Amino acid sequence: MNESGRLIVISGPSGAGKSTVVGKAIEGRHDVCFSTSVTTRAPRPGEVDGREYFFIDRERFREMVERDELLEHADYVSNSYGTPRAFVEKKLAEGMNVLLDIEVQGARQVHEKMPGAVTIFIAPPSLEVLERRLRGRGTDTEEAIAGRLERARQEFREADFYDYLIVNDNLERSAHALCAIIDAAQWRFSDRAEWLKNQ
Amino acid sequence: MNESGRLIVISGPSGAGKSTVVGKAIEGRHDVCFSTSVTTRAPRPGEVDGREYFFIDRERFREMVERDELLEHADYVSNSYGTPRAFVEKKLAEGMNVLLDIEVQGARQVHEKMPGAVTIFIAPPSLEVLERRLRGRGTDTEEAIAGRLERARQEFREADFYDYLIVNDNLERSAHALCAIIDAAQWRFSDRAEWLKNQ
Repeated sequence: MNESGRLIVISGPSGAGKSTVVGKAIEGRHDVCFSTSVTTRAPRPGEVDGREYFFIDRERFREMVERDELLEHADYVSNSYGTPRAFVEKKLAEGMNVLLDIEVQGARQVHEKMPGAVTIFIAPPSLEVLERRLRGRGTDTEEAIAGRLERARQEFREADFYDYLIVNDNLERSAHALCAIIDAAQWRFSDRAEWLKNQ
Repeated sequence: MNESGRLIVISGPSGAGKSTVVGKAIEGRHDVCFSTSVTTRAPRPGEVDGREYFFIDRERFREMVERDELLEHADYVSNSYGTPRAFVEKKLAEGMNVLLDIEVQGARQVHEKMPGAVTIFIAPPSLEVLERRLRGRGTDTEEAIAGRLERARQEFREADFYDYLIVNDNLERSAHALCAIIDAAQWRFSDRAEWLKNQ
């Protein structure tokens, strides 16, 4: 019986409530951990290498890309970020379910490289609600809000390859959904077909 | 948002503990019901038409097969049994998750006719355990036990199209797994992709 963990990829626009749903879903669960990304940006005060990120230089990053050592990678501002395959595979082999909180383009890369990954898109109840939430935060300019909404619209269009869609109109319900999806993933036939054949 | 129910198909050899797992999983759940089959066999004392089965004659059964009104059908002894499509679709439309407890061949028919169905195979921990359990019941002759084991072996070989495999080595765990699979099925992307497109 294959008792390795599952790779769980979660995406969703800023303001969909993704972090809150994930936090509630994995509360008290010892079978779930987050992936730790590599980045070329400098550590901020208090950040520890291997905790917030693995901090690496551009040369090493380029090398990891070339050697296909990253499950996905992307640039933000003038820095590069990526998900190290070896770290993820080690955690999976230890039986941990590994959560990746990444954008749609990165999720698509993982979806292609790791067909066993479970992909989940967390959406707000509507773009109107998303707009209200973003405005309610009071942290973004009107221009930034318009940008986030346009980005959400684009993500909605691109998010056609996910396994699951959670429309987050109720925190409890969404967290329960995420838990069920993680639990159900342990029992997928494709991961256990060998067992049946060997009987 | 599509809030119709899901069709949940469950198979597994006699002695795998399927009924016990299902019973425990759906205990207290009001969102799950069993499908009611049609049969050409005569009602037994106490059986009520529409409760245990819909009792129909051979002519009507043949007509249902011809009109593709059955999601699957099979013959046992000299009687025919089938799952009426209209009944299942009505329950699904009402938002109920409909459980079908059927054999592998029937499950394959449903899998082909209803691509949205979730299919689950419940297996015993091993054929040795299955043999012990069957013998422990004390109800079967040695010949009958040998027949059941051979049938289980055959089902294991044919069961290559299921979405999930639950190896029932722990009742609580298996029931939890089944619950999670039913819950996760509500959030499948394919059933909700329209919603995302319409935003």
